Amino acid sequence: MDIKGFQFSAVEAAIKKPGRKDLALIFSEAPALACAVFTTNAVKAAPVLLSKEHIVKGTARALVVNSGNANACTGEQGMIAARETSHLVAEGLGIPAEAVQISSTGVIGVQMPIERVRAAIPALIEGLACGTLDDVAEAIMTTDTFPKMEARGGQAGGVSYSMAGIAKGAGMIMPNMATMLSFIISDAAVEPAVLDKAFRRAVDGSFNIITVDGDTSTNDTCLIMANGLAGNPVIQAGTPEAETFEALLHEVLLSLAKQIVKDGEGATKFVEVRVSGALSDADAKRAALAVANSSLVKTAFFGQDANWGRIFAAVGYSGAEVDPSRLALRFDDVLMAQNGVFAGGDAEVRGSEVLRKREFTVTVDLGLGKGSATVYTSDLSHEYVSINADYRT
Amino acid sequence: MDIKGFQFSAVEAAIKKPGRKDLALIFSEAPALACAVFTTNAVKAAPVLLSKEHIVKGTARALVVNSGNANACTGEQGMIAARETSHLVAEGLGIPAEAVQISSTGVIGVQMPIERVRAAIPALIEGLACGTLDDVAEAIMTTDTFPKMEARGGQAGGVSYSMAGIAKGAGMIMPNMATMLSFIISDAAVEPAVLDKAFRRAVDGSFNIITVDGDTSTNDTCLIMANGLAGNPVIQAGTPEAETFEALLHEVLLSLAKQIVKDGEGATKFVEVRVSGALSDADAKRAALAVANSSLVKTAFFGQDANWGRIFAAVGYSGAEVDPSRLALRFDDVLMAQNGVFAGGDAEVRGSEVLRKREFTVTVDLGLGKGSATVYTSDLSHEYVSINADYRT
Repeated sequence: MDIKGFQFSAVEAAIKKPGRKDLALIFSEAPALACAVFTTNAVKAAPVLLSKEHIVKGTARALVVNSGNANACTGEQGMIAARETSHLVAEGLGIPAEAVQISSTGVIGVQMPIERVRAAIPALIEGLACGTLDDVAEAIMTTDTFPKMEARGGQAGGVSYSMAGIAKGAGMIMPNMATMLSFIISDAAVEPAVLDKAFRRAVDGSFNIITVDGDTSTNDTCLIMANGLAGNPVIQAGTPEAETFEALLHEVLLSLAKQIVKDGEGATKFVEVRVSGALSDADAKRAALAVANSSLVKTAFFGQDANWGRIFAAVGYSGAEVDPSRLALRFDDVLMAQNGVFAGGDAEVRGSEVLRKREFTVTVDLGLGKGSATVYTSDLSHEYVSINADYRT
Repeated sequence: MDIKGFQFSAVEAAIKKPGRKDLALIFSEAPALACAVFTTNAVKAAPVLLSKEHIVKGTARALVVNSGNANACTGEQGMIAARETSHLVAEGLGIPAEAVQISSTGVIGVQMPIERVRAAIPALIEGLACGTLDDVAEAIMTTDTFPKMEARGGQAGGVSYSMAGIAKGAGMIMPNMATMLSFIISDAAVEPAVLDKAFRRAVDGSFNIITVDGDTSTNDTCLIMANGLAGNPVIQAGTPEAETFEALLHEVLLSLAKQIVKDGEGATKFVEVRVSGALSDADAKRAALAVANSSLVKTAFFGQDANWGRIFAAVGYSGAEVDPSRLALRFDDVLMAQNGVFAGGDAEVRGSEVLRKREFTVTVDLGLGKGSATVYTSDLSHEYVSINADYRT
């Protein structure tokens, strides 16, 4: 899909190890509206701190991103490295430094090899002539096993516009923010208020409802840039066009979020956890997250063991209002338990069949009210342990 | 160690599978003071609900406990089974049903095979003639690899008294309560208020500061019975004897709690996580628990990888007040990071040496105040995943 006025580049800077592209650039030929949400972790990486400074006016023209080093827990030296990187990119592109967003992902606590980044930036900028968004999606991967992309097209006032997003995830996936890094670009012309509202809602309904291991990283960033070069009449708040734009953006982000869960470190299962019948939506989300984050539940999924009692136990300690005698549970459409106890019959056999699938849904009904929530999670496998035990080596 | 006036028994009831003792009894020849703390999980097992009813007067004479079946998520039928078990034991012992405490551990959501329990109770009561506390400690094991026991002796008014405790843990270990099951007996004569205060403080300083996987079970119970048969002058509140009693009890519980962590499912490391310099003790505990529960930190311990950045990341999302530029970290006495950044020098090499040990201490200083906390945790290994993936099969 062609997103008008965006250029891409990715090069090999040997930030962690040679042999793969690890430094990438997205450039908008015209100033773009920009919104971003960043990690809620109190320990924020240097690029997060700098990007927050740069985005205050709601505009950006470039994103420079590296994998292999998170530039987190690197103190003043890390800030200097981030600043120099954004300055060099700005200089090479002929734009102000404040127009550059910067992101990093990789190992925490190691200083950026800034001399390698410095040496690679001229080639990075030259590469804009022939790079693709796919190149960037690949360059930001760490333990990801596949690049994550999604795109949609829409119309406003009879003019077509496009949007596309990329993401990297794999580990440290937990609201809020859930994603490690996600970048969305669009050539749509939209009012700033429309973009801001649509973006925040889309993030809430996607990256903030997935979890892999309950950890929140120091670097999580989701950024959108919209440069208006599609030439459509500006999408105004309160119009059907604004609704369409928001719906499309939500589709892109939800697809990326689901791809992140499917590629969760060592994941062999993709599980949709739905909670209904809660006293409130907040209670439902609390219960759903407790189930989705429970190591005991997730290892049972990995073992394809229909150990439904662990799910009720997780709901029980979630903090949500619970009446044990009203709990019901389904694996896909198989009723495993109701009124808090085993449903009997062939539930065990049929439930185990569901758990042998690559993807399934777990539905818990609390039987108390109308609150509901859905979150997405993976299982917890041997491979997760292997990946994270040996991550730095 | 001889605890005066207590008898023990354990038999094979084939509750889950034949070939091991899975039903046990502790009996006090005289009425005993009793205190207990139970799981905070909203989904409580039937024996927990019944034991809470029975202990309201602060006394007990017997504890009947089974492994292999948790009798949780079993509804009214589960309550009937628990009630029948306690009635049969009471009848056999010639005591009121309310004098019987009851506990279960094992798989959730399966009805108790009450006919097997019923059939085994006569032999269980007969066995009191020759059983030991060791037998009970072994009978309550599930995925535990060793029985957990500790004992202490003290003096009051020149008369010796004793206390001993047993525990089972392994999985689902998380405050509050942290232990699956722990039972303490003593022949000391103590005022009820002394026993209550000493017990609650000892639990807070032991089972409530350990974590294995962040899950809280439906069955967690810690019970103490003190029958006064040592014949010491009753230990009164506010005396040095009360302090000694409390200190001894804390030693017993802390030892049991540490044994549980060391025997955490698949654990290969025993890690003491200390947080100092927090704005409050509560903040320190929040930070320590975030570190102790982080899957990423725990897999790094398993991999013997001095990935200290993950520890700062966990502190950062813990909710504790944190200034990243003031954080310091040690593995044992090796300074890994200070002022939020890597300490440099040979820290990497020396830190990795510490992590190769079976036991070590992680100390995080937040550099903000005087709050401190210590928690104990294990690593997250392949074996944890194996055990929990295949638990029921």
